[in-house]
Amino acid sequence: MPGSDTLRRCVILTEGQTHPTPAKTAAGFLRYCPEQAVALLDSQQAGRDSGELLGVGHGVPIVADVATAHRLGANTLLIGITPAGGQLPQPWRALILQAIRLKMDVISGLHTILSEDEEFRQAALDHGVRITDLRLPPKDLSVNRCRSTRSKTFRIHTVGTDCNCGKKVAALEINRSLKNRGVRSEFIATGQTGILISGKGIAMDRVIADFISGAAERLVVENEAFDFLVIEGQGSLVHPLYSGVTLGMLHGFAPQALILCHQYGRTIMRGTADTPMPSLKTMIDLYERISAPVFPARVLGVALNLMTLTDDRQALDEIKRVEDQLQLPATDVIRFGADKLAEAALKFYQRGETHSTC
Amino acid sequence: MPGSDTLRRCVILTEGQTHPTPAKTAAGFLRYCPEQAVALLDSQQAGRDSGELLGVGHGVPIVADVATAHRLGANTLLIGITPAGGQLPQPWRALILQAIRLKMDVISGLHTILSEDEEFRQAALDHGVRITDLRLPPKDLSVNRCRSTRSKTFRIHTVGTDCNCGKKVAALEINRSLKNRGVRSEFIATGQTGILISGKGIAMDRVIADFISGAAERLVVENEAFDFLVIEGQGSLVHPLYSGVTLGMLHGFAPQALILCHQYGRTIMRGTADTPMPSLKTMIDLYERISAPVFPARVLGVALNLMTLTDDRQALDEIKRVEDQLQLPATDVIRFGADKLAEAALKFYQRGETHSTC
Repeated sequence: MPGSDTLRRCVILTEGQTHPTPAKTAAGFLRYCPEQAVALLDSQQAGRDSGELLGVGHGVPIVADVATAHRLGANTLLIGITPAGGQLPQPWRALILQAIRLKMDVISGLHTILSEDEEFRQAALDHGVRITDLRLPPKDLSVNRCRSTRSKTFRIHTVGTDCNCGKKVAALEINRSLKNRGVRSEFIATGQTGILISGKGIAMDRVIADFISGAAERLVVENEAFDFLVIEGQGSLVHPLYSGVTLGMLHGFAPQALILCHQYGRTIMRGTADTPMPSLKTMIDLYERISAPVFPARVLGVALNLMTLTDDRQALDEIKRVEDQLQLPATDVIRFGADKLAEAALKFYQRGETHSTC
Repeated sequence: MPGSDTLRRCVILTEGQTHPTPAKTAAGFLRYCPEQAVALLDSQQAGRDSGELLGVGHGVPIVADVATAHRLGANTLLIGITPAGGQLPQPWRALILQAIRLKMDVISGLHTILSEDEEFRQAALDHGVRITDLRLPPKDLSVNRCRSTRSKTFRIHTVGTDCNCGKKVAALEINRSLKNRGVRSEFIATGQTGILISGKGIAMDRVIADFISGAAERLVVENEAFDFLVIEGQGSLVHPLYSGVTLGMLHGFAPQALILCHQYGRTIMRGTADTPMPSLKTMIDLYERISAPVFPARVLGVALNLMTLTDDRQALDEIKRVEDQLQLPATDVIRFGADKLAEAALKFYQRGETHSTC
C-alpha cells in the first residue's frame, strides 16, 4: 500500500459527483483517514468545504484543479468515486496524467486497472511515481476449499438489503467497539475503500467469478490469529447487479453471525430502475435460509443508515420501530456507535451457539 | 471458434482421468460432436474404447500418445478434463507442446489461459497453429442493466442441486425437443463444454465477479431473435465453491422457468468433504424464493441424472417417486429424452403465466 513508508497526502478526485452516494470512497477515506486528506477536487464545487457536501471531512477544502491541490501539499491523487461498472470516465485521463507529471502517486479503486494502461504506466515510469490499483486481486486465487467452516475464528459479516447502504462503516464500527472491549478483533476489507482504509484485503467484486468463495476463505485463513473477524459485506443477496458476489462471499466466509445493513427510505434497489426493496423480514429469512446448507448463520442485529433523518428523535423512533418489529437490536452506527451490535455478537459467542452440526 | 472453416479432428486429452465425472468436457464433446473425435489420449487406458469408460464415444479409440493420434489424423488437441479450479496440471505442458510442434491446434477450457502463456504462445506462432481458450470472456463486459427482465424471450434455465449433475445435457436436450416441435429455440452455453459444442456463449465462471449478471444479460440481449432460450446452468445455489456464479446468472438471465437437475444418489456436494445435499424440495424452495425479488421464476420439472442406475425399471421407479413427491414432471433426459420437460415449458408459456408484475 502507498503511504506505508511516507505519509500519503491525498487530493481526492470527486469531479462533478461530490455527494455521499457516488463519492463513497471519498467519504470513507475522509471518515477514517482524515489526517491524510489535503483537498477534494471538483471544479464545480471549488471553494466549498468537504463536510458541507459529504457530511464528513469538515475543514478539507474543495479545489478546482490538480495544480492547486499540489500547491497545498498533495503528493497523491486518490480516485474518490465508485461508478457502477467501475470504468474510468474519459475526462479523468487528463487529470490523472497531470497528477503523474506533478510527481503524484495515484490510487484507484476502479475496475479499469490504471497500472495496466500503457499511457499511465509509461507516465508513472517517466516521473517515478507509483500507481496502486486497490481492486487488483492476488493472481493465485483458487476455488473454495471450505476451510472457513472449520476455522476457530468468530466471523461477523455485515450484509445488506442493497448495495451502498453502510456495510463497510458498520463493520469498521463493530470492530472498533469489540477492540475497545479488549477483544482480539480484526476488520476484514472486501472492497476498494475498505482496503484503502485498512491497508489490506481483497476487492471481491474483481476476482474471477469461480474464485469468489475461495478469495473469501483466504481472508479467513490469513487472519486466524484473531478471535473475531468483522467482515465487510458487498452488494445484496437480491441485488440484480451484484448478488453473485454477495452469495459467493457468504458461503466462502461462512460467518456465524450476520448484521443486516439497511438505508432508511430506500424503496427501489440502487442502480436499478424498478427492482423493489424487499422487507427486512424477507431479507433476514433469505440470508439465513441460503446460509444454512453450507454453514448456518444467524442475523443478530440491524445497522440502520439513517443519514436522511436529520432529527435525532426521529432516528431513535425509527430504531425502536425496527427493534420492535424484528425483536433484534438495531442502531445507527454513525450517530450512536455500534456497541449494541458488538454486545449482541459477544453474547451470542459466549452462549456458545456458534458451532453448527453442519 | 476453431473448426468453423476446416473440420476439427480432435484428440481429446483425458490423461489419467478417463471417467465421466472429471472428463465431462470429453464426454460432452463425444455425445454432441462425435464426428469430430479421432481418439482419446490416456496412456494408462490405451487400447480400450471411449464408450467403455465414458458411456459415450463408442468406437473412439484410446491412444497412448500425441504422435499416435496425429497418425490417426488428429489436427486438434482438445483438453478434455475440467479439474476443480481449472489449473493446468504441469505434466500436460509437454503434451501440449508436442501437439503444437505437430501443427495441431489446441482447444482448452481451463482457467489457465494457454494463449497467454509465453511458451505456448511462441510455439503456436512458430508452428502456425491456433490456441483457443474457451473460457476467455469478452473484454468489454459490464454490470447488469436489467434488460433480461424486459425481454420478450421465454427463458428456461437448467439449475442444479450440485455442480456436474447434468445441467448442460438437460438444456441441450430440452432445446432439441423444442426445435423438433418447430419452436424457434436456442441453446445458450455458459460453460466451456457448451461453448465447444455450440460454437458460442460465455464461460460465466471466468468473468469478473461484478459482471456475472451483466454477462448473462448480454447473452439474452444477443439472442432476442429467438422465442425460447434454453440456458445452461452452472454450479448450485448452495454449493460452497460455486454458488456466487449460480446466483449471479439466475438474476442476470431472469428466467421465467427453471428445470432442477439432480444426480441420483449424491448425498455430499461434489468437491466438498462434508457439505450435505439438501432435499429437492428445499432446493426448489430456495431457487424460487431467491428469484422472486428480481424476477419470479417457477420450477417446472426435474431432470434426473440416473446414470448410476443401470436398470431401466429402477430408473422409471425413481422418476415416478420424484414425480409423486414433488407433483412435477421428471425424467432422465439421456435415457428417455426431454419431451416431458419441453412440454411442461410450452404449457406454462401458453397459459401466459410468464409475465410477472415485478
